[in-house]
Amino acid sequence: MLHKNKIPNLKVIAFDADDTLFVNEPYFQETEHKFCALMEDYLSHQGISQELFKIEIENLPLYGYGIKGYILSMIEAAMNISNNTIPIEVIEKIIQYGKELLEKPIELLDGVEETLQALHGKYKLVVATKGDLKDQHSKLHRSGLGHYFHHIEVMSDKQNIDYQKLLGRLDIKSHEFLMIGNSLKSDVLPVLEIGGYAVHIPFHTTWEHEKINHKIEHEHFSSFENITEVLQNLL
Amino acid sequence: MLHKNKIPNLKVIAFDADDTLFVNEPYFQETEHKFCALMEDYLSHQGISQELFKIEIENLPLYGYGIKGYILSMIEAAMNISNNTIPIEVIEKIIQYGKELLEKPIELLDGVEETLQALHGKYKLVVATKGDLKDQHSKLHRSGLGHYFHHIEVMSDKQNIDYQKLLGRLDIKSHEFLMIGNSLKSDVLPVLEIGGYAVHIPFHTTWEHEKINHKIEHEHFSSFENITEVLQNLL
Repeated sequence: MLHKNKIPNLKVIAFDADDTLFVNEPYFQETEHKFCALMEDYLSHQGISQELFKIEIENLPLYGYGIKGYILSMIEAAMNISNNTIPIEVIEKIIQYGKELLEKPIELLDGVEETLQALHGKYKLVVATKGDLKDQHSKLHRSGLGHYFHHIEVMSDKQNIDYQKLLGRLDIKSHEFLMIGNSLKSDVLPVLEIGGYAVHIPFHTTWEHEKINHKIEHEHFSSFENITEVLQNLL
Repeated sequence: MLHKNKIPNLKVIAFDADDTLFVNEPYFQETEHKFCALMEDYLSHQGISQELFKIEIENLPLYGYGIKGYILSMIEAAMNISNNTIPIEVIEKIIQYGKELLEKPIELLDGVEETLQALHGKYKLVVATKGDLKDQHSKLHRSGLGHYFHHIEVMSDKQNIDYQKLLGRLDIKSHEFLMIGNSLKSDVLPVLEIGGYAVHIPFHTTWEHEKINHKIEHEHFSSFENITEVLQNLL
């Protein structure tokens, strides 16, 4: 557990975006629920979700993260599940759901704005996210939080090597870097492994692909219920 | 016209990727040709291309640039053109064509490697592209050119403001920046407007959206047939 002022050389604080700054996964789940309802003549909701997840993971090396790849995977799942008997109007609906997902209003999470306000000017603040570049710029712009951040780092993945490249671009050492995010797998573990500091702010729901099944204890690591606790306990 | 050693404060050289470092637009045109052939029972090739272009431009604010948005726009065009009578197998083909486009081999353009080799170590070299983040990282990796570059800047657009943000991230002044690319609209004009230097290397084919209809004369501007002429005439 980190204690106040215990990151003496801190220069850059990076924030994950989706489900750390604003709501994301529930919107995907809502879309998936509508997709399952569209397809329920063919398979159970659970069966549809499983097929969709399988296709998403298969397509990940080719499509990367983000909504456009998700739409394409839903279309592919609809064709597979129906054995190519799906009416074309269902494809049309899927594209419509995808466009609606791209235009979802931005719902800030509790305490985010006051935390950014308090840290702004004291550290270089950046957004570090692995979503789709276009989606993430659009969301940050619509969130009204853009002016707190020096820039967005859209990463193609969040593994050790990606964080090492990030530190290179930022021209800082790992002990000058703090990452705040909701995913232990993507925002915490790789950062700790390369010598940085990490704070976990759990979100109530996590994408299957981001789950890990062990606990973390590390002197560079903290976990808080609310992001404002970073101010009260850490910095 | 710029003369040799006439960018005395040059620090960073940014290269556009698609059709500057490696072949891109011909692959899109090849895919579009196959798409038109798929749809030729419904409309002339020209009519299909026009409808696809219209939908691409409509979707640009939502999807941004890149292959995944292109695939989704082809699917939408197929549904519109056929008045939703298109067989589902055609949608399957479109997705297959899109995946093939994502996996096209990387074909380096003439002189690119020797130019990068000569400039490497003398300036900070970056890639500045507005494609899709995932696509561009994948292409640069497969090109074997990755080690010449400090990093990739994937920009959500290439307007004045986007270049200004880029200079901010690079922490340099505009007169320390040279952009090299094949698009007058995206790689040259905005860079000149913010006070940077620009080199145009025309490619034999240009996407409709990137065309401009006037000539450029500017003391910070050069145009060369082959990228190696940057070495012979400019730096």
